[in-house]
Amino acid sequence: MARLVMKFGGSSLGDIQRMRHAAGHIAREYNAGHEVAVVVSAMAGETDRLANLVREAAPLHDAREYDSIVATGEQVSAGMMAIILQTSGISARSWLGWQLALNTDGTHGAARIVDIRDDLLNKSLAAGQVAIICGFQGIGPDTRITTLGRGGSDTSAVAIAAALRADCCDIYTDVDGVYTADPRVVPEARKLGRISYEEMLEMASLGAKVLQTRSVEMAMTQGIRLRVRSTFEEPDAFISDIPALDSGIGTLVCDEDEIVEQQIVSGITYARDEAKVTLLRVADKPGVAAGVFGPLAQAAINVDMIVQNISDDGKSTDLTFTVAKSELDRAIETIGAARDQIGYQDLSGSTDIVKVSIVGIGMRSHAGVAAKMFQTLADHGINIQAIATSEIKISVLIDAAYAELAIRALHAAYGLDV
Amino acid sequence: MARLVMKFGGSSLGDIQRMRHAAGHIAREYNAGHEVAVVVSAMAGETDRLANLVREAAPLHDAREYDSIVATGEQVSAGMMAIILQTSGISARSWLGWQLALNTDGTHGAARIVDIRDDLLNKSLAAGQVAIICGFQGIGPDTRITTLGRGGSDTSAVAIAAALRADCCDIYTDVDGVYTADPRVVPEARKLGRISYEEMLEMASLGAKVLQTRSVEMAMTQGIRLRVRSTFEEPDAFISDIPALDSGIGTLVCDEDEIVEQQIVSGITYARDEAKVTLLRVADKPGVAAGVFGPLAQAAINVDMIVQNISDDGKSTDLTFTVAKSELDRAIETIGAARDQIGYQDLSGSTDIVKVSIVGIGMRSHAGVAAKMFQTLADHGINIQAIATSEIKISVLIDAAYAELAIRALHAAYGLDV
Repeated sequence: MARLVMKFGGSSLGDIQRMRHAAGHIAREYNAGHEVAVVVSAMAGETDRLANLVREAAPLHDAREYDSIVATGEQVSAGMMAIILQTSGISARSWLGWQLALNTDGTHGAARIVDIRDDLLNKSLAAGQVAIICGFQGIGPDTRITTLGRGGSDTSAVAIAAALRADCCDIYTDVDGVYTADPRVVPEARKLGRISYEEMLEMASLGAKVLQTRSVEMAMTQGIRLRVRSTFEEPDAFISDIPALDSGIGTLVCDEDEIVEQQIVSGITYARDEAKVTLLRVADKPGVAAGVFGPLAQAAINVDMIVQNISDDGKSTDLTFTVAKSELDRAIETIGAARDQIGYQDLSGSTDIVKVSIVGIGMRSHAGVAAKMFQTLADHGINIQAIATSEIKISVLIDAAYAELAIRALHAAYGLDV
Repeated sequence: MARLVMKFGGSSLGDIQRMRHAAGHIAREYNAGHEVAVVVSAMAGETDRLANLVREAAPLHDAREYDSIVATGEQVSAGMMAIILQTSGISARSWLGWQLALNTDGTHGAARIVDIRDDLLNKSLAAGQVAIICGFQGIGPDTRITTLGRGGSDTSAVAIAAALRADCCDIYTDVDGVYTADPRVVPEARKLGRISYEEMLEMASLGAKVLQTRSVEMAMTQGIRLRVRSTFEEPDAFISDIPALDSGIGTLVCDEDEIVEQQIVSGITYARDEAKVTLLRVADKPGVAAGVFGPLAQAAINVDMIVQNISDDGKSTDLTFTVAKSELDRAIETIGAARDQIGYQDLSGSTDIVKVSIVGIGMRSHAGVAAKMFQTLADHGINIQAIATSEIKISVLIDAAYAELAIRALHAAYGLDV
């Protein structure tokens, strides 16, 4: 017997038929004798519907009321799932964030989990009941409902798994695991059997949508094994072997020590949601970077990559950075308003870019990984506009038109093709 | 300055435009310096949508999960109303049943309010905040969400008014008050300025849909003055004079002592949702009534009117009773299954009936009220199939085809026409 947390996203709960299908997965684990806690998102489309309703009433609105309104999506799906399980003769009940209590800080709309009372859940599981827990929601210090931000149900699931000391946290989604690259772009992409927390974290931050970044962070610090697997397989097609976790189902996100054959590069990701801002001929003197990024920080605009080059006159510098596409206009405005303080010759923005990244813990111990990336892109005539690196990833900014070409070429170059 | 509870039903909250209109009523009272607590139903259609979703999942379902699901309707509308008021610069916040706490018993789906903590609400009102309270919902002894049954928001409003010792509880609805009869049937019907609790209670029980019966009951025992008024008037058309409560707005439901000119008959109501069951030639011996109504009670079928006549042979009796139309089939089945124990010659059911009632506290002190009713119906050739009376009402069962004729004739006979 093992203890298992199963998380189902909105696409797994689109209508009652899909909910019954998801209930089949739960029934399989329950009938195998496991203790099962389930975390659900809202039914597909419901969170958007509620968020739009609020926006129609007031574009700027009280985040506490917003949270109370959008949290109803999970309240409905949790109750529905409990009822559906009961029709199969399985004891089940729904749990709202405040009933647990799943305590968060007071940052409405993007709250962080502080702690979770586990006594009620432990009692429920011990009594042979499936606990259906509302994802995405908690209760703040003001005893009002909080939400964890978009994709927050992944984080709820990991936090519940940590509180319950679960053996595994299975994330059921519309793909059957984590791939070496987006299969829509690279038909030769392979599903990874295992991937380390660090790699998954980079991949999630870099555009792979399969898991919320914070959930991976929390799984890493809490040592929770996450498994990404498909909800659309027949429930009985795979019998879980939770203690072994090596059944070939999905992708296991785990400690790197648990990965026997480490790849140098585990995956290639891309992000199309960034935009580039370039300042030409900024005076090359101390305080310039602060002059540019100070106002952006004040305007709460997140900056991702930053590149600075000495200009050909030797006295000025060119500065390039990236922001989210949705914030490009505000970034240009902000920098424009500070032109006198900063002092630059020209300012331009472009959305015609893509960020392509290679990720792999093997990079740490292998030389020449970056060189191969740059050579591969050069061989295909692709110009690199900016570079950013960390210990286990290299990201490059390139012209959006070359995105697919670059990803496929890199996938082949690092020996990832099937 | 007065303290006021304002209740808005689903039709007043059909969409954001209607919610803004309702917010105008709230703003008027708030800006007049009153302390205002608002009780809201779910947006029109939302409770039905949620109830249907549950029914689609399982016709028979856990009432605790059902309550948690349908209670989201009010959670959304309360948050929306708070946000809409805030856009007008009015401080407002939503309150969920469990946040108050509005404690109920554990009868999920039809819970009764046990008590309401008033400290948080009093603090909120004292701080100049409009409290927007979810109607229809509470929290049970098991700390799970309960609901009060259909129309329960009226009861929530009265209970909140009692807990807050409010000066008045205004029920905003799609009619502008309580009428002497349904104006769709009787064009000459008049709006009543005042009506006693007892009369309103009879009228609500007898088919007038304007208020939930239990809310009137509670208003009577708690001495809460209820005012039924239209939500669709221009918010500024009527400035409330709460202490006087005699502005001609709506209908005030109050103690009979507060009604100066009492009518003998205050109103005529009708109900088309009953069905008639007749047992022919039941043995006329002790225990027969128990033999018939025992099995019905066990099947949880409510019986309304009961009439028993001696048959022409002197040894047997005919028994007629009414049940809700929706339960006719079950009632016939139940009586059919008990045929051997009861012993009757024939069993028949009919839905082709209507119950017409006259209501008035003046009946207590006036003779001949019933006689006038029977004579009026006879004059129009309308046969009476059953009669039931209480101290302040007389109900008759007649052929459904004569409903409008009977109501109009009685309205004129008792001098209620404009």
